[in-house]
Formats: sequence, structure tokens, C-alpha cells
Amino acid sequence: MICRALIASLALAGCSPALADHDVATSPPAVPSADLPPLFAAEVEHARAFVDGMMAQGVVVPVPTDPGGGYTHEQHKRNYKAIYLGGQLYRVTGEQAYADYVRDILLAYAKLYPTLGDHPAKANQNPGRLFWQVLNDAVWLVHAVQGYGDIRDTLRGADRQLIDDQVFRRAAQFLSVDSRATFDRIHNHATWAAAGVGMTGYLLGDEDLVERALMGSDKSGKTGFLRQTELLFSPDGYYTEGPYYQRYALMPFMVFADAIAKNDPKRRIFQRRDGILLKALNTTIQLTYGGYFFPFNDALRDKSLNTDELYHGVAIAYAETGDPGLLDIARSQGRTILTDDGLKLSRDLAAGKAKPFPFRSLLLSDGPEGGQGAVAILRHGQGASQMALVAKNTSQGMGHGHFDKLSWQFYDKGHEIVSDYGAARFLNIVAKEGGRYLPENESWAKQTVAHNALVINGESHFGGDQKLADLHAPQQLYFDASADLQISTATIDSAYPEHGVTMTRTLALLDVAGLDAPVVIDVLNASGDSSLTYDLPLHYSGQIMETGFPISRYLTERPVLGDANGYQHIWVDGTATPTADNAFMTWILGGRFYTYRFVPQNDLKVILGESGANDPNFNLRREPMIIQRKTDGRDVSFVSLLEPHGLYDGAAEQTVGSRSQIASLRHETHDGYDIVIVETKSGAKTALALSYDSDPAKTHNAKIDGHDVRWTGFAARIALNGESN
Amino acid sequence: MICRALIASLALAGCSPALADHDVATSPPAVPSADLPPLFAAEVEHARAFVDGMMAQGVVVPVPTDPGGGYTHEQHKRNYKAIYLGGQLYRVTGEQAYADYVRDILLAYAKLYPTLGDHPAKANQNPGRLFWQVLNDAVWLVHAVQGYGDIRDTLRGADRQLIDDQVFRRAAQFLSVDSRATFDRIHNHATWAAAGVGMTGYLLGDEDLVERALMGSDKSGKTGFLRQTELLFSPDGYYTEGPYYQRYALMPFMVFADAIAKNDPKRRIFQRRDGILLKALNTTIQLTYGGYFFPFNDALRDKSLNTDELYHGVAIAYAETGDPGLLDIARSQGRTILTDDGLKLSRDLAAGKAKPFPFRSLLLSDGPEGGQGAVAILRHGQGASQMALVAKNTSQGMGHGHFDKLSWQFYDKGHEIVSDYGAARFLNIVAKEGGRYLPENESWAKQTVAHNALVINGESHFGGDQKLADLHAPQQLYFDASADLQISTATIDSAYPEHGVTMTRTLALLDVAGLDAPVVIDVLNASGDSSLTYDLPLHYSGQIMETGFPISRYLTERPVLGDANGYQHIWVDGTATPTADNAFMTWILGGRFYTYRFVPQNDLKVILGESGANDPNFNLRREPMIIQRKTDGRDVSFVSLLEPHGLYDGAAEQTVGSRSQIASLRHETHDGYDIVIVETKSGAKTALALSYDSDPAKTHNAKIDGHDVRWTGFAARIALNGESN
Repeated sequence: MICRALIASLALAGCSPALADHDVATSPPAVPSADLPPLFAAEVEHARAFVDGMMAQGVVVPVPTDPGGGYTHEQHKRNYKAIYLGGQLYRVTGEQAYADYVRDILLAYAKLYPTLGDHPAKANQNPGRLFWQVLNDAVWLVHAVQGYGDIRDTLRGADRQLIDDQVFRRAAQFLSVDSRATFDRIHNHATWAAAGVGMTGYLLGDEDLVERALMGSDKSGKTGFLRQTELLFSPDGYYTEGPYYQRYALMPFMVFADAIAKNDPKRRIFQRRDGILLKALNTTIQLTYGGYFFPFNDALRDKSLNTDELYHGVAIAYAETGDPGLLDIARSQGRTILTDDGLKLSRDLAAGKAKPFPFRSLLLSDGPEGGQGAVAILRHGQGASQMALVAKNTSQGMGHGHFDKLSWQFYDKGHEIVSDYGAARFLNIVAKEGGRYLPENESWAKQTVAHNALVINGESHFGGDQKLADLHAPQQLYFDASADLQISTATIDSAYPEHGVTMTRTLALLDVAGLDAPVVIDVLNASGDSSLTYDLPLHYSGQIMETGFPISRYLTERPVLGDANGYQHIWVDGTATPTADNAFMTWILGGRFYTYRFVPQNDLKVILGESGANDPNFNLRREPMIIQRKTDGRDVSFVSLLEPHGLYDGAAEQTVGSRSQIASLRHETHDGYDIVIVETKSGAKTALALSYDSDPAKTHNAKIDGHDVRWTGFAARIALNGESN
Repeated sequence: MICRALIASLALAGCSPALADHDVATSPPAVPSADLPPLFAAEVEHARAFVDGMMAQGVVVPVPTDPGGGYTHEQHKRNYKAIYLGGQLYRVTGEQAYADYVRDILLAYAKLYPTLGDHPAKANQNPGRLFWQVLNDAVWLVHAVQGYGDIRDTLRGADRQLIDDQVFRRAAQFLSVDSRATFDRIHNHATWAAAGVGMTGYLLGDEDLVERALMGSDKSGKTGFLRQTELLFSPDGYYTEGPYYQRYALMPFMVFADAIAKNDPKRRIFQRRDGILLKALNTTIQLTYGGYFFPFNDALRDKSLNTDELYHGVAIAYAETGDPGLLDIARSQGRTILTDDGLKLSRDLAAGKAKPFPFRSLLLSDGPEGGQGAVAILRHGQGASQMALVAKNTSQGMGHGHFDKLSWQFYDKGHEIVSDYGAARFLNIVAKEGGRYLPENESWAKQTVAHNALVINGESHFGGDQKLADLHAPQQLYFDASADLQISTATIDSAYPEHGVTMTRTLALLDVAGLDAPVVIDVLNASGDSSLTYDLPLHYSGQIMETGFPISRYLTERPVLGDANGYQHIWVDGTATPTADNAFMTWILGGRFYTYRFVPQNDLKVILGESGANDPNFNLRREPMIIQRKTDGRDVSFVSLLEPHGLYDGAAEQTVGSRSQIASLRHETHDGYDIVIVETKSGAKTALALSYDSDPAKTHNAKIDGHDVRWTGFAARIALNGESN
């Protein structure tokens, strides 16, 4: 029974055992606020500020009329937040006024709810009752049922019955029966619905609702919450839509699982599938840099761990695991939730039990069975100066996915150096199409050229067809995170079916003798069945300090690079034809210099550009890029290197190492091996050798600069004693 | 005698009185490091890290050959830092190795110095000995003499004599006699020289050197340090080149004044001219927002209070004044200096004596007598969310000055919203012209159109002629910082002598009924003797959310706005002809919305643009601007308003108030009065009335929207009861 469980979950200091009997209506004892740990006490004040403001306005439960962002929409959102927090405040403070306010709102809903049909502003096939979309109704229920659970025992029988029947049973019926099409999906919208329905079942003692929530509306187990935990996360806890949506999807999973664990401990929900839910929570955190999510797919780039979903997720997971790294996350969030889990977390944080969260290199498989590609995260160093290379070798990730197979990002010293645009959207900003995804999300943000991914013949992967893209995923060939060579290799042969192109990309953090930080090595081989044009963009952040190659610049007018597939949004700043000697460019960002160096293939042309053309409403950010273009190619190899170097300190007026420390970058092929040779200005040579043979024991040989070298396995770092050493 | 003074100044806990006798060579007692306050202890570690590294390399005193940035240049810089810090470390720790190292470096200089003539890489008429410029030699001496003072008493007589004569007397002779042209200037380069020579005089007991330093090489007092304190700062402590150079200029003033105060207390140096030096230090801090200097003139925008000059200035001033606000600055700096002053500051900071530094609204006159214009700073609110409007009504400020009469900036919530470009320079970055000022500093950064200043006929103020510009300054007509109206008005009639143009600009922070923050009101009247083209640019930071007016956009190619005076660097994004109803534009920055609204004069055209055209070496930042253009005008009035509003919180996915709360902005003129009327969407009307009559008692009348209104003095805020109220 959720009522008992919720009460048990609020076993705050001094809580009387009598409270465990939910049939006895009594005021719960308050916890003296002086006894609350700081984080929790601050959260109480946060909640008070909101709920007291709502109470000052009285009970306002309008007839639903407006779509998202409109008045009734926002008011019903405020109401569920008031119900949720009001109930919690009552539990924590014992102040009857909170219980009364929650009761009064719910009684108003008990009058309104039976009068409702489809929302008048319904936007799609899945209309809600209180809101234009059923998803919002589910979110309402998940919150409201928790607040109700906190005060239900204090109600007169008649009020309780009225609210049970006219609000919660109706809402659960609406979600699980009337909206069966949504309820039985394997999708995060269905997770919200299952959570609302299941928690209502626990609270009302309605086993039927619980069963439907867990096993799907036909109770077969083919859909429902338990199945969702199996299909929506990969075995490594990765959610296929990407981190931005993973954070959102996680909320109902964690909250409902917490209720299941407390009401139905025999189900061992947190142990299911090798602890998938806790793994997913941990993975969500791993998918961040400096607190911000990797902006894969349709992501808002300002989304960080400081978000309501993660306050819940961290508190619930900490209560389960006691992982001190989660306390570190909670400390950086500075927020928690007003439950027993939040209290425990706050107490342990105040007791100094936190330890740094172990951000680390790891491979996260995608797909329910882990066979739909992967995300490879390579990290180097600790804390604020950590470096992170992220290889996005995942599947498409449904409608919010971008056409960016084998793309990558790079972070260093707190900044995103090689960037992913994220979504073209200004959330909730009325003037920007009401806060919805903008047209440029389709025409730019999703397109391949907007990513650090290979474009062929100016077309996006899968021809920009999401349904086709959902059928195919890259294959992760190799991953290793050794100290002096961290590396990921993946391949895909389905992104350009009409050209029969196979693309194989290796991204590595390679220690180079004599340099103060590893460099990124990028080896991208592609081969098609005819002569093609290959464009490899690099979207970087920073200002150009120098280019090794002379540039033919567009100084007084800037043309646009193309007319479709994102190219129409690229202003051209200039073009160049680099040679082996001068194929590099240096930029500065955040007090550090970055040199991008590449091996110029025959006839390689370089295009320097910037996003922002054909953008009538100033919807795009203007960001620079460099594109390596190889025309009339069949088998091509793009070999590139990114070298962080030096230091610029404007405060101290100190600059060191503003120029690249590397003398040359070369690429050799031997019997299907790729050998990349980096020589520093001091003459030290370091090579990356790739056999592409996954047998770790097999030995490979090659001749490099007259030396016989030998290595075992897929890839190796080789220190060469060059002539100049 | 500086030796005694320095010792006295290091009266650290446990320091023996016997030390006051500088003729006794003895090891000073160390202060147990456990007794040092945290800030000072950390500073000791900073210094140790540097000096220990230098000591590990041994004594390296090369024959000077290289220009700035080159090896010998950098090595002599490192050496003076090692002498300076090494001496201090010896005083603090009592470790003889530091004294020995300082002695050994100085003995090497004693061998080298007599062999030197003009530096072989001399760059101008003022060559140095150790460095290419005499300025660097002066900086060397200021540091070295302090470090020498710390260890001189420990030397054998022969070593002392050698160093006295061959290094310090020679260096002082070089600066004050051989380089008399620099020494006798009224310029910060001369201040460095005076400080070095004067402190050498104190240390060696050479009254002649002291006298020359204080009174100029002819001891007449027409030049020299004392005269510099009279001429280089305005009565309000403003340095005419602007904050960036003020910070730099302040260092020798404060350091030498500290030595004068300690060696020659009867001079009451810190009380001179109404305490001008302490005032200048305080003013330097007031000329910042969020710790960063207002980037007037040739300023590097990343220059903050966290700079060596201010570590000295704050510690020295605190020792004089005990102002607890300075402790607050030291806390934010996190650094101090290894002197008695730094120790006192560190102790008081650790004792919790800091109070918030009182950043406030104030008018800072420019010019030795305060008659060369002014900087008006209008602040609203406290701490991180403080708003600051800065009106730059100063004189040209010599060679580093920009042609930006009556320009302004605006800061809000930690961000620069209306911006000043600063200098086009990448300090010390070799690839960017060796770190010198770039060609674009002349062609863009100094030009009027690169500022928020009025451009006439596409020409910069004073025709871009610095010598002419130095002869003229704006006149500050009015300044008031009342709670609901903070205001500055200034005028200049000399910026366009050939067109006989007078420009008068009022910038105000006006409280508007019903808004959560004041708005900026900008009233710029100009009149010339013929029909002219007036361009008023606003350089803003942020992304456009909406424009009220339709824009004729350049979507597929961007032209350049002009061909000279900075216009050649502006890409045109579009043009528009706004009407009274739609003359506004909203952008977002840092989670806040800003709406720029203006009264469209007849035939007013608007140009949306971006810097970055004609920039072959990617030297410019690309920043947006909007230009109001009035062609064929004779008497023109630009009336504009900047409204901060709303909130965007990406983490909470919350957006409120993204649209302007203002319904209209109107401008009326009555008998030479300007009346600006702001009406909010809720119908409240607030007016700003300007009489331009500085008699505070005089009453003025006007009819606004049918109401007779009355006010006294130059300007007033008037709340109107409009029809809709």
C-alpha cells in the first residue's frame, strides 16, 4: 500500500509508529526545523516559498482550454506542483494548513474532472483531459498522487472517497484504458502513464491498477513498466534518444520504482536486469561534462544535472545504494527532494560522506540488447581540467535523432572545443514559434553537415529519412581505455545505401612523447562504389589564431555553401588547398590553444565557414567550422589530429605555448593497417598503429620510417626512435 | 632609509628589534608558517614555487639581445621577479638559500651591467639597457630594488658595494640621467622610472636620487613623481587613458608612495592632494563590473582586478586606510603580496573583518583639474545581479584613446549587455602580430562606429585625428543618482568641427511603474549646420528573439556596409524602416531578455549588422549591432530605451516575461524641453522630463497627454495618471 509506504518513507525523526496505520487520521509530528540538515532545510524553504504563494492565491482550478504555455496549462502545472509539495510540507512540518490546501485543490478537481472530455486544444492523436496532450495528464497524476498520499490519512471519509473516486480513479482509468494507445507503447510517455496509474493503485489499494501499470493494459507483460525497463535502456543503461531525453525519461522510472520497492519489496525492482535502473541513473550522470549533458540529438544545450528529474533520481538512487559519489552530485546540484530519501541524502552529505563522483572512460552500448551501436566516452585527467572525447556511434534514436553517425565531440578545461549544435529551439520562448522546435531544427540541426560527421555528395545520412535510419546502427568494433592510448573504433555501411559506402572511424586520445596532454587522433576511412564527394566538417569553438595554409578569403561578400541538407545555412569565409607542410589551423578558447592538423589527401580542399545563412528569423547560433572536402574520391582516408596546447592568461598577461608543438602528421597504410605518425618539434615520434583485428593476442608488423615495429591486437601506441632523437 | 623601512615593514610576529639596525648583518627570524594567515601562507607557496624553480635552473643572466617576447627579454623579466620574491621569501622564511640566490643573481648583473649600451633591439627613441624599451628597465629596477632591500643587510661589505655601485647606481643613473627624456615626462612610463630611482635612493641613502625622483631631474618640481600625482589623475582619481591603463599606471604610484610613506613620513604622501593616490586606487576598483574593468579605449577585455598591480594596490591602500571593503576585494582576488602590508591584510581578512566593497553610482571627472569631461557610473542593485550603466564622457586619453565621445555601456546580471569592443589585440600571442595591437585596432576598434556613439556622415569623431581629439573633451552637464532616476547628461560641440555639430546625450536609469527593474533611457540630440547623415550604433551581446519590424534580410549573401572608418568591417544582415508601433528588438543573454526600443524619426532606417568583414586574418570578434540611421537630417533626436525583462532558466525549463512589458515609447519637445513617455502594457505611464537647466530650484512646466506637469531642476521622473489607469 502506497499510503503506508509513503508514510514509512517519511520516517522522519520523531515520527510516531501510530502513523503507519493509515486508517487513523492524525497530525504527523513535525520535525523541528533545527534538526534538519542544511540541504533539506533549504529545500523546505524552496517549497514553502512556492506553496505559500499558491495558497495566497487560493484554489484556482480552471476549466482546461489553453494549449501548452497558455494560462490553464500553466495553472494546472502549478497546481500539481502545489499538491505534490504541499503534501510533503505537511509531512515535514506538520502544519495543517498545507494538508487543508492540498485537500481543497483536490476537491476542486473532484468537481471538475467528471465534466471533462477531450481537451479542446488537443494537438495530436493523444489528447489529454486537463492538458492538450495525454503526457501532461500523466505527469500531473505522478505528482498529484504523491501529494495526495501525504495527506490522505488526514481526510474525513467522505472527502477521501470523493477524491479517490472522482479524481484518481478517473485519471487512472483515463490513462490506462481510454488512452490505451499511449499506455501500451514502449516509450517514455507510457512510463509516465504507468507510473501515475501504478502509484494510484498502491495508494488506493487497487491491485488491478498496479498490475496494469506493471504488465500493460492486458496484463500480459508485453508492455507496461516492467517491459519498459527491459526495452528502453540498453544493458549499460543508455537511453536511445540520448542524454537530454534520458534525463527526462528517467524521472518516472525512478519515482515509480521507488514506490514499487517500498510497497512491493519482493519484486526487487532495483535488482531487475542486473540493476538496470540504478545503472541508468549512473549512466545519465556519466553522460555529462562540467555538469552539462552531451547535447546529442534534439537537446537543449543548457540542460544540466541541476534539474528536477535528477534531484529525484539522485536521492532515490542514493537511498538504494549509499554511493558516496552521488552525494558529490547532490552537493553540486545544491537541491534535493522532500522525502525520506532526500532527508537521508541531506544528512549524509552534512556528515561529510561525499566522495568525488567517478567520471571515467567507458563504453555504453545502445539498443535493448546492446547491439545498436554505442557511445564511447574517453576521459583524461580529473576535475575542472578533465578532457573528454565522446564518440557518438549510437543508433538514430527515433524522431529526435540526428543524422550524425560516427560523429564526435571534445571537451577540455571546462569548454566544449569540438561541438555538437544540439537542437534549434528556444524552450518556452513565445516569440520563437511558441518555444517549439524551429524549422532550422530540421533544415540545420539534424543534418549531417551540422555535425562532425562525414557527408557524402552533400546528402545527409539515410537521405535524412528517420524511419530508414531507425533500422540501422553503427557497429562498435573496438574500445580500450589504457593509460597512454584510449581508443574507440566503429563502422557503418548503411548510411549511404545508394552509394554502397562503408565508413570506419577511429577516435583516440594518444599520449605523445613530450606533450603536456594527449592529442586526439581521428582516422576516418570511407569507400564507396563510385566516385563521390566527401565532406568532413569540424565544428569548433574559439577564434582562429593562425592557419598554416593561405586562404582565399571572401572579405567583402560571403557566399553560401549550398542549397540543401544544411549547406544552405553555411556562410563561406574562405577556401584553401593545404599541403602536407601547412595543413593545420590554431584557435583559442578559454585560455587554451587548439591546433587541428590533418593529412591532406590528393586534391583536398578546405572550406572555412560559419552557420547562419538563410536564417530569416535569427534562429541559428553563428558558429565556425572547417570542412575537409575530397572530390572524386572512392577510397578515402581522413586522418586528423587535435592538439591542445599552451596557456593564455589575460589576468596575468601571460601566454605560453601558443604555437603547435607538433612538426608533422603522417599517415601510412600497410596491408590494411593504418599507421599514424606524429612527430613533435623536438623530434620525438609517436605512432598509432591500427590492425583492425580484434584478436588481442595476434601480432602485427609494419615498417615505419625504416624501423620494423610490432604490436599485438587491434590498436597500439608505438614510441619511435626517430633519426632526430 | 628604505632598508630600515623595509625591515620595519616586515615587522612580522617574532621579528627582533635588532633587525631595525641595518648595519648588522644577521639572519632574520622566520615566522612559523603555522602562524601565517591562509591568504599569506598561500602566497608564500606561490612564491616558493616560482623561486624554487628559478633556483633549480641556477643563475642565468644573459647578454640582452631579444626584443619583447624573446628569450633574453623573458629571462630578465623572470630574474627581476626572482630577485623581488626571493628577497621577500628570505624575510618571511629566514631561509638563507633565498638570500644567497638573490645575491648571486645581483652579482651576475653587477658584472653584466657595466658592459651594456643601448639595447641592440631598440624599438624606439627610448631604448633600454637590459630591455628594448626603457620602460622595461624601470620595471626591472622597481622590483629588483625591493628584493635587494630585503637581503642587503646580509651581504659582505664587498658584495654590497659591488651591487650598490655596479647595478643600482648605474641603473638609477641610466633612468634619471641618460634617459632624461622619459624620466621627465608626465606619463606613467616616467612614474615607473621615478619609482625605481627614488626607491634606489632610499635604499642607498642617496638623497640626490630621491630628490630627482620626487622633483624631476632638474629638481624643480615641474616634473617628477610629486608632479605626476597632480597631473596624471583627475581630482576624482581617474586616469585619462582609461581603466585598463589606470590599473597599470597605479602600480608604481602605490609602491613608491608606500616607500615614501615609510621612509619619509613627513611628506604625508598619501594625504597629498586630498588623498589622491588612495582615491585613485578606490576609483580603479569602481571602474569595474563583476571584477572586470570597463574596457574603455585600448583595453584587453579579460583584464580584471585579479592582477598583480591590484594585489599591490589593495594591500598598500588597506595598510593606510583599514577600509574593510578592500578586504572584500582581496578575498575575491585570492592573492596578496609578501610584505607587511600583505600580512596585515591577510590577518584581518582571516579575522573576518571584510565588508562588501561599496560599488556605487558616481561621477568621475577627467583631466588634471577635472574639467576634461567625466565618466558617469549609474548602478542599481547589489552583488551579482547589479545593473550598471556607464557613460563615457571623457577626454580622448592620448594615443590609446578611442573616438567614442558620449558612448556608453550597460551591464546586467553579470553580463555586458551593451558592449564596448575594447582593443583589437591578442596579448603576447605570437601568431597575432607578436601580440601587438593589430591593424584592426586602428581600422575598427578605435573608430566611432565600433562604439555606441553617434557617427556623422560615416566619419569618426575628430576625423580620427588623435592630436585634434586630445584638445577637446565633452562637458558633463548634469549628474544625479536618486533612487528612482539616475541620470547623466553631457555635451560636446567639437567632435565634428567641419559640420558644426553639437551632440548632447542623456543616459538614465529610470524606474518605470510596474516593471521589475529600471530601464535605460537614451536621449541624444544633435544639430549640425547642414544636412547630414547620422548613424547611431548599438553594440549588443545576445541572440535576437524577435524584432517588431519586418526586416529586409540578406539571406544568401551579405554585403559590407561601407569602405572606411570601420564601416568596411560591418557585414549587413538586413535593413528595416520601423514605425512607431514596431520599433523594437528583443534579444536574450544569460537568462534575461533585453528589448531595445526607439522612437523612429522621419525616414529612419535601421541596419542590422555584425563585425567581421574585411578581416583577412580573423582578427576580429564577430559581434552584432543595430544602427539607427537618419539621413538628410539637421536637428535630430535619437530617443531609445533598453528594457531588461523576464527570465529564462534552461535548467528548470522555465521562461517568464520573454516579451517586452512596454506598450509605447514617445518623445515630445516643449520649449527646449525633452519629454520621454514610457507606457507599460498595463497602462501605467512614466515620463522623463529634461529641462537642461541646471538651476535646481527653477520650476518647469509642460503639458503631457493633456496633463499639466511641473518639475524642478534639470531632470525629473514624473509618474503620469494616464487615461487607462
